[in-house]
Amino acid sequence: MEILFSGICHSDVHVGQNDFGSTQYPCVPGHEILGKVKEIGDKVTKFKVGDLVGVGCFVDSCRECAECKSNNENYCLKGMTGTYNAPKTHGGVAGNQEGKTWGGYAASHTVHEHFCHQIPEGLPLEKVAPILCAGITMYEPLKHWGATVPGVKMVIGVAGIGGLGTMGVKIAKALGHEVVAISQSMKKEKLAKEKGADYYVASSDPESVKNCPVKCNLILNTVSVDHDVNTYLPLLRNGGTIIQLGLCTKPLNISPLILMSQKKSVAGCLIGGVKSTEEILELCAKH
Amino acid sequence: MEILFSGICHSDVHVGQNDFGSTQYPCVPGHEILGKVKEIGDKVTKFKVGDLVGVGCFVDSCRECAECKSNNENYCLKGMTGTYNAPKTHGGVAGNQEGKTWGGYAASHTVHEHFCHQIPEGLPLEKVAPILCAGITMYEPLKHWGATVPGVKMVIGVAGIGGLGTMGVKIAKALGHEVVAISQSMKKEKLAKEKGADYYVASSDPESVKNCPVKCNLILNTVSVDHDVNTYLPLLRNGGTIIQLGLCTKPLNISPLILMSQKKSVAGCLIGGVKSTEEILELCAKH
Repeated sequence: MEILFSGICHSDVHVGQNDFGSTQYPCVPGHEILGKVKEIGDKVTKFKVGDLVGVGCFVDSCRECAECKSNNENYCLKGMTGTYNAPKTHGGVAGNQEGKTWGGYAASHTVHEHFCHQIPEGLPLEKVAPILCAGITMYEPLKHWGATVPGVKMVIGVAGIGGLGTMGVKIAKALGHEVVAISQSMKKEKLAKEKGADYYVASSDPESVKNCPVKCNLILNTVSVDHDVNTYLPLLRNGGTIIQLGLCTKPLNISPLILMSQKKSVAGCLIGGVKSTEEILELCAKH
Repeated sequence: MEILFSGICHSDVHVGQNDFGSTQYPCVPGHEILGKVKEIGDKVTKFKVGDLVGVGCFVDSCRECAECKSNNENYCLKGMTGTYNAPKTHGGVAGNQEGKTWGGYAASHTVHEHFCHQIPEGLPLEKVAPILCAGITMYEPLKHWGATVPGVKMVIGVAGIGGLGTMGVKIAKALGHEVVAISQSMKKEKLAKEKGADYYVASSDPESVKNCPVKCNLILNTVSVDHDVNTYLPLLRNGGTIIQLGLCTKPLNISPLILMSQKKSVAGCLIGGVKSTEEILELCAKH
């Protein structure tokens, strides 16, 4: 594919600067890749030359394990192959060099058709790129925890109103849910409401938490700096789940008695599989 | 009701000894009560004199809130009324004295019919009592997390092979699941296998954890002393949930990265509602 756009995700910056200590230079970041098919292999059936296509966070997986067969390639039991800075595994990534993968800050990209997505017609391409990472990151937990079942109406909390969070507010609204935007202070209220949030909570203010008129079935927690998840638990209804999506390293420190006495769950989720990615591209195109 | 049997649960001992600091003497413990209907009120329609009946962990709730209307009286938003040592609330508990409830270590008990269960015929009554607490404690999480849906086959882990755990192994087997019994050492292997466990893991031995040939969809964690839940997480498959059921006070210390990279959940659950209690009584009668 000829690359037309490639998003800049904070993790690209982290890897470029070797913040995780795992960068192998030379390194080509970029995992929100939008472009046009330039050439196809003999066995390709999903695409033709000229198609608009996208590539997200991974470019290979074993495709044989229980996770791959359940459309969870991102949880491949033999390990997914990241779009860049990853050792080539499964023998399937053609076109990359030096035994590792290179990403989207480039002129072209070669990828197996299974890990490449058809982009619906008529979209502003430069805005589609982040759907391939931020979008799927917010959609997958909504799907896994039942919020994409037709007819189901929930109250969805979104903690952290940044790149992931604003995407989360819009997707949850598009799915027909009520949305509670949660940020530390009141500073993000205008932005969150513009994106469609029905309610806004400043989590550093106990009165604001207490006065929220609804309780959430799910909270998508995009906060990516170490923070106290207990602050958010009162916003969850009994039986609800808070899902960690922002990359934090500090252990969660949660009272088992609170989980028990309110049947609450604390969970985590990391991007999503090929099928889910295609679903969120379609949902965004529609809305 | 005339009381025929009343189970001795560890929490009865705790409350009797004021271990939680909340006991109000005089106190009559007992929340696994089995007996026979001796007298009924004018408006009673569910029972007749002579019926075999049971009373579990609570004897009242508001019956009007969203939780009560969803058969989760145990999570009543106005507070359920415990079977003993609880202030009388909701105006509905007749027959108790001193403004608080008294439990099953007594000759008789008076209770609203909604919180009283018909006991299926032909059961050894002395063995039915623990179903009203231990049984429902193990059944409710299986139900909430999808393991009682007909046709669904899961791998269920049961951590802690004591009063709750042996009940959990038997119920999970009765529902048709594979069961992994998890205990600290090998000491409980014979007991767990006798109760029906398919596999046994000694959680203090990393080799034993590693060699377990299956991964669990759910782990029912009955361990009631402070412990490191991270020991059990490798036994959970991607997307799985570990549910705290034993009363621990120490905060759970869990890496958000493990939850994210394996889409795992840590949850809690506390007994179950009236409808679930009737379901587990029927399941136990059948098996």
